[in-house]
Parts: sequence; C-alpha cells; structure tokens
Amino acid sequence: MSSDFRSPFARRTGVSATWDAAKARTALLAMFHAAVQSADPRQRLAAHLPQRPRGRCVVVGAGKSAAVMAAAVESAWPDVALSGLVVTRYGHTVATHRIEVMEAGHPVPDANSQRAAQRILALVAGLGEQDLVLALISGGGSALMSLPAPGLTLADKQVVNQALLVSGATIHEINAVRKHLSAIKGGRLAQAARPASLVTLAISDVPGDDPAVIASGPTFPDRSTLGDVDNILAHYRIVPPPAVLTYLRQAPETPKPGEWDSDYRLIATPTMALQAAAETAASFGLHPWVLGELEGESRELGRIMAGIARSVHRHGLPVAPPAVLLSGGETTVTMGPDAAGRGGRNMEFILSLAISLQGQLNTWALACDTDGIDGFGDAAGAVIGPDTLARAQARGLNPTEALRQHDSFGIFDALGDLIRTGPTLTNVNALRAVIIA
Amino acid sequence: MSSDFRSPFARRTGVSATWDAAKARTALLAMFHAAVQSADPRQRLAAHLPQRPRGRCVVVGAGKSAAVMAAAVESAWPDVALSGLVVTRYGHTVATHRIEVMEAGHPVPDANSQRAAQRILALVAGLGEQDLVLALISGGGSALMSLPAPGLTLADKQVVNQALLVSGATIHEINAVRKHLSAIKGGRLAQAARPASLVTLAISDVPGDDPAVIASGPTFPDRSTLGDVDNILAHYRIVPPPAVLTYLRQAPETPKPGEWDSDYRLIATPTMALQAAAETAASFGLHPWVLGELEGESRELGRIMAGIARSVHRHGLPVAPPAVLLSGGETTVTMGPDAAGRGGRNMEFILSLAISLQGQLNTWALACDTDGIDGFGDAAGAVIGPDTLARAQARGLNPTEALRQHDSFGIFDALGDLIRTGPTLTNVNALRAVIIA
Repeated sequence: MSSDFRSPFARRTGVSATWDAAKARTALLAMFHAAVQSADPRQRLAAHLPQRPRGRCVVVGAGKSAAVMAAAVESAWPDVALSGLVVTRYGHTVATHRIEVMEAGHPVPDANSQRAAQRILALVAGLGEQDLVLALISGGGSALMSLPAPGLTLADKQVVNQALLVSGATIHEINAVRKHLSAIKGGRLAQAARPASLVTLAISDVPGDDPAVIASGPTFPDRSTLGDVDNILAHYRIVPPPAVLTYLRQAPETPKPGEWDSDYRLIATPTMALQAAAETAASFGLHPWVLGELEGESRELGRIMAGIARSVHRHGLPVAPPAVLLSGGETTVTMGPDAAGRGGRNMEFILSLAISLQGQLNTWALACDTDGIDGFGDAAGAVIGPDTLARAQARGLNPTEALRQHDSFGIFDALGDLIRTGPTLTNVNALRAVIIA
Repeated sequence: MSSDFRSPFARRTGVSATWDAAKARTALLAMFHAAVQSADPRQRLAAHLPQRPRGRCVVVGAGKSAAVMAAAVESAWPDVALSGLVVTRYGHTVATHRIEVMEAGHPVPDANSQRAAQRILALVAGLGEQDLVLALISGGGSALMSLPAPGLTLADKQVVNQALLVSGATIHEINAVRKHLSAIKGGRLAQAARPASLVTLAISDVPGDDPAVIASGPTFPDRSTLGDVDNILAHYRIVPPPAVLTYLRQAPETPKPGEWDSDYRLIATPTMALQAAAETAASFGLHPWVLGELEGESRELGRIMAGIARSVHRHGLPVAPPAVLLSGGETTVTMGPDAAGRGGRNMEFILSLAISLQGQLNTWALACDTDGIDGFGDAAGAVIGPDTLARAQARGLNPTEALRQHDSFGIFDALGDLIRTGPTLTNVNALRAVIIA
C-alpha cells in the first residue's frame, strides 16, 4: 500500500543530500568486510605467535577455524619443525603440509570427536620443557574434541547434560559439571601437555571472551570444583547414571588457577570485529555506536533496534545522524509448530527491522553472520533500505506473513538483497549495522 | 547456587568505590520521579496555555489525564469564564469546579464513550470567532470519546476494525479506515468547533508523538482520504457490513492539512520524560544514554538490554561507566496458554534483565510505568541490583521459573523491591533506567 497518507510527523526530514542507497550499501559491505577480515587467521594469527621454540613444536587444536589456523601457523613458521593434529568440522578443511587435519561432528560429537581427543592427548604426552605446544582453539571445539573421563561413556555425559539443560541450572553450572566429566575440557589438555610450555591462540565466539568457556576451556584453568558439582547435582535433584556417581567419588580435580601461568592469546573476538567495523564506518563519516554483543529472539531485536533507529532519526538520540548502530552476538530463532520457513537469525532480524521501520527515510542496514552462512542456504545475510517493504509488496510478496512463517530467505532472495561471501572459515558471530543518515 | 567458580573473566572489575546499592536506588528513584513530574499536567500545563480569549472558553477533552488537565486549566485561569466537558477513564476523576468530568470505558468503549462524544460535539457547535475551544487530549482518548459516523453502529466499526487487525494491514492503514468511520476522530472535532479558535494541549503516549495518532487525532487534520480507505479495504479483501458500504459511498471527507492552522501543543511526551530523567542522571554524575522509545516483547528486551549493559561494563562501549541506559516506550507481554502469572510489562522486563545479567557487579536498574500501575496490582514497577538473583534464591524463589510463568510480581513482592507511587494521572509510557557504575 502507498504510505502517502501518513502524517507529516512520520516524515519529518527529507531525503539525505549526501547519502543514497548505493553509498549506504558500499559502507555496509565495507563494515562487514572489515569485521570478517579482523577475524581471519590468515591475517591475524602470525602477530600473536610466541618466540620460536628451542625444542619441538606440537600444534593441536579444535574448532571451526582449526584447519585454517593450522595453515596460518605453517605459513608463519616455514622453518620450524612443526607436527601435530587439529580437528575441525566436516567440510572446513584447508590444505596443510605438516599438521594433520581431522574432521568430526558438530554440533553433535561423533566417533571422530573422541578419536581426535585421544590422539591429541597422546601427541602432547611425553614432551620436554624445551618443547612448545601450540593450541589453536575456536568455536565448536567442545563438540569436535570430546572425550568422556575414564570409565564414562558419551551416553553417560549426555544423560547428565540433558537433565541439567531442563533443570533451570545456569550455563556456568552446566559447564562446571561438564568439565568434571571430561578427559580433555576444563584445562585437562594443558595438564596433559606438561612439562612442555603451552601457548593458546584462540578465536572467541562467546560473549565476554571467557577462555574457560570458549570450546569449554581445554587449556584454561577451571575455577569450579568437585564440591560445586556435588552441590549442583543435589540442588537440581539430578540423579546421574551409576557410572557417573562412581567416577565422581574418586575423580581427580580439574587443574586450578595458579597451578601454571596460562599463556592464552585471543587473536580474534566479536568485540575486535565490532571495532574494525566501527573504524570503517568512521572512514565513511558515520558516527559509530557499538551496542555490544546481543542475545535474544531475532525478530524482537529487530523491533527494538527499530526503536533506537527511530530515536536517532527523530531526536538525534543517543547520537545524531549520520550514525551507525553496530552490534554483534548471536540471536535465536524460535520456530513454532506451523513454521515452514527458510531463513537464518540475521535475515529474520533484518526482515523484522524493515517491517518495524515502515520505510523510515535515510536508513539502511545489514545483518550477516561472520562465518558466511546465516542458518539456511548459502548466504551470509541480507541488506535492507527504506524501499525494501515497498519493493517486496510490488512483487506480490508479504513481508509480515514471511516473518510469521520464518521465511525471510525467500523475501531477500526474490529482492536480490542477499549477501553472499561463501564460508569465511572464521566465526565471531553476527555483524549488524544500521545506518541512519 | 554460589557463583564463586565462575571465571575471573566474568568478574573483571571490583566493586565500585563510589557507587553502592543505596546510592543507586536513590538515583533511580530520582530519575523516575523526574520523568513523572515532567508529564504532570499540574506542573506542565499552565505554561502552554494560549492568550486568554476575548469570548467564551469551552474546554473539552478525552483521555486518562483529561480530568487532571481540566483541573490544571481551572487553576491557571481562575478568572476566565470556563465551561465544558472532559471524559476520562473510570476512577481517573479529580475534583473540578467549572468543567464537568464524565467517566467512560477503556480500553473498550461503552455507552458513556458515545454520550461523551455527542455532548462534546454539541458543546463546540455554534461558537463564534471570539470564542476559544481548548481541547485536552491524552492517551486513551480514542476509546473514551467514540462515536460512529451517521448511520453506523459501534458494531459496524468493530467488525471492520477486527478484520483489519487480522489482515496484515499496518497501523497507519487501520487508522485511516477508523477515522473515516468516526464522527469525531481524524479532525472532525476541530471541524465541528469552527469558527471558534481551537488550541489543543496534548500528552503523548505514542512513539513519535504524531498528533494524528494520539487519541486518533480528533483535532488534527487527516492526511488519509476516502480513496485510501477504498484501496485498503480492497487490498486486504475486507468486505464491510452493508451500512459501512452505504456510508462510504456518500461520506464527507475528513478535514485535510491546510484547511486550518492547527495549534497543537504537546505539553508532555515520552521524549521529554526521558530528557528529564537524563538531566537528573547527570546530576548524579552518570553519563545518560537515551535509547529512545522501544517496542517488543518485554523479556526479550531484558536479554538485549543485558547485552548492552555487559558491553558498557566490560568494554566501556558505547559509553564508559558510570553511565545509565534510559529508554521509554511500551513493551508487550505475550502470555502462553500455561501462564498463570501476575506481573506487568516492566516487571517482566526487569526480571528478565536480572536473570540475563547473572549478578553483574555495579549494575542496578529500575523499570516503572509512568502512570503508576504496571499491569497487575498496585505497583509502578520494580528495581534490581547485583544481589537480586541471590536474594531470591536464598528465599527459595526461582526467578527463571517465575519468568516462564509471567509471575514477576511475586518475586519482587517477596523481595520488597516493588516501587509504589499510586496512580499518577498521567502517562508517557515506561521509564527504564539501567545504571552501570
């Protein structure tokens, strides 16, 4: 429908003299490019490497970026005697020459996850003080390198995990239990590598970049204790399988802070990606406002972000145009039973944003996943502008109904407004950018 | 549960040296007080009155604040010959001496809504150019002063309205149709008052403060046309009752922009309330950051606001502590079939915020409705701090389960953290304030 009859108060300002759709699209894509580049191991890893070791260098690791990180180590250290094994997700392998790459299951661990963990623990055992273990950690590493503690099966761990997930326990409590039932998480990989020196290079995909949380912290000391585990299981009235009870009665404690100096280096984080996007935005003359890493239902974030964008547009609050609202983090899409749609968390966010903005002038936005794949299909995300709703309606599409059906992909595919990068082999979650010019 | 085993990364900073719970509570209550005061007609209305009329002054109006606005006119103009009638919600009457106050149904109009509209149209008819009509408009006025166009019944209007609500039509489209089926909305009250001069004093409770939207704009010109109405009904395939079709074939057009100089004065708005809260925050040494008027599901806004508060706490982005995130607007609570809970939109927001913040240090928040009643019961809202979750758990309460059941009231009632003001007789929607010190 035409919107001409809307009140003049809804159209207080005219069209920007200095911004148009083409310039906005260029700026948005440049911000996204900068965010992805900031997290690309091929560009970022080398600067974080420690001094070359006098002894051997064993490279281990797990995560969606493990293979590309290993390749980056090989490039940076062509003359170091590297060996080792990293495990990544099926299809995430890149060519390496000295470091072996395995593939395993994600998000659900499989037999390869266990084999990888066993082989990695074996590789770091028996090294000397002159030797260096380089651990390459990224998101997904928890599933890709998974090994139950001695005497336990994967099924034992899953029973306890499932009970915790429905109990109301916090993520900190769940992680405390998980780590104590694992042979490799919660610092046990670091423990196995002693007396070799250990340096971790990590890409964070968790809010706050807590090394104890990234891939469940295989190389980071664990603050939780066996006593905490007992309390948590009792508090939430969880009765674990007999094998778990038997194990916990005589289990060794996870390594604790202070037991060694952890050399843990974050080479890429969601915050660094946001800062890279902010610098690029500033080069286009936009005031960047970094809202941080956000969680919540995608479509609701769209409505809320529209409220902030309206405030910028109408009142110059919290910042005067031309500005860009930047945010990261990982939102969720809760599918109802009647939803048949195709679309990822970012496309759903930005479709909801477009609907809430109702064609607000001088406002353009992008929402993409930095890993290059937004849930469904082969696109990283999508872009919108003031004419998105009108263009959709002109083609007989119904954005409101598409949102209800979680079918954001169909809308943006038809409009030609998908962003395609291919897999980027890194992941620092979403980049959302809303320009108000 | 104790949270001592959480990683040091989650507790990067110590306790603030200059902020504690008592100071934060004082600052939060002062901000809320300032927001409510900024919208109190007893304090704000007089300054917006026009010059005293040479002829008669007829005061009319509708809305939740209509009676207290009428009383404020009487106080400001003790020696002007005032007469008139305003209509407010049941229980929202205050004592007046010269201007009559009626009460009617809200949010569903009743017979009194129609009687009030008829009487008000009669009062402004037959005035002269020397006379002044003062229209006092506030939220709720649309239901409280409701009159179908000649030949239509309330049922006719409701059938069309209901069909539009489920059709996917935008709120602008729905309002365009509504105004054309009304005898008083869409500027028709202003039309009836001619040739008297007309001044509107309004309290906005809608994002953007569009006078065409506040109480459906009885005194503001209407940009929508009968042609738009035909297009909207056709586009959404709505077949109205025969009386509506008959009426629309010969209906007079609503008054249009340019037909008269509309003297429309906003005496209080959500943005003014946010600015008042921001000024108060600054006097406490807090950097105020106004996010604007936000819409969306209350609990999701809680999660999203927690993300922004974490970014301020951890990274000093978008603003360094000590700061306060201020927002207004009206969020929603969608109740599932199994929800038996008690709680309003603000309490649900702030309970969700507390759960997502997981005891973040140096962080305190308030969420209250400026009308003094947050949905259920007699409280305006509630406050939280870093110890809210721990205090609830120590009393055997389960905040996560309470949120799932929409039972936020019970938690805050048990903790003694409700804020009670009594009805304020004004409404500029919510005030949410999140201090990160």
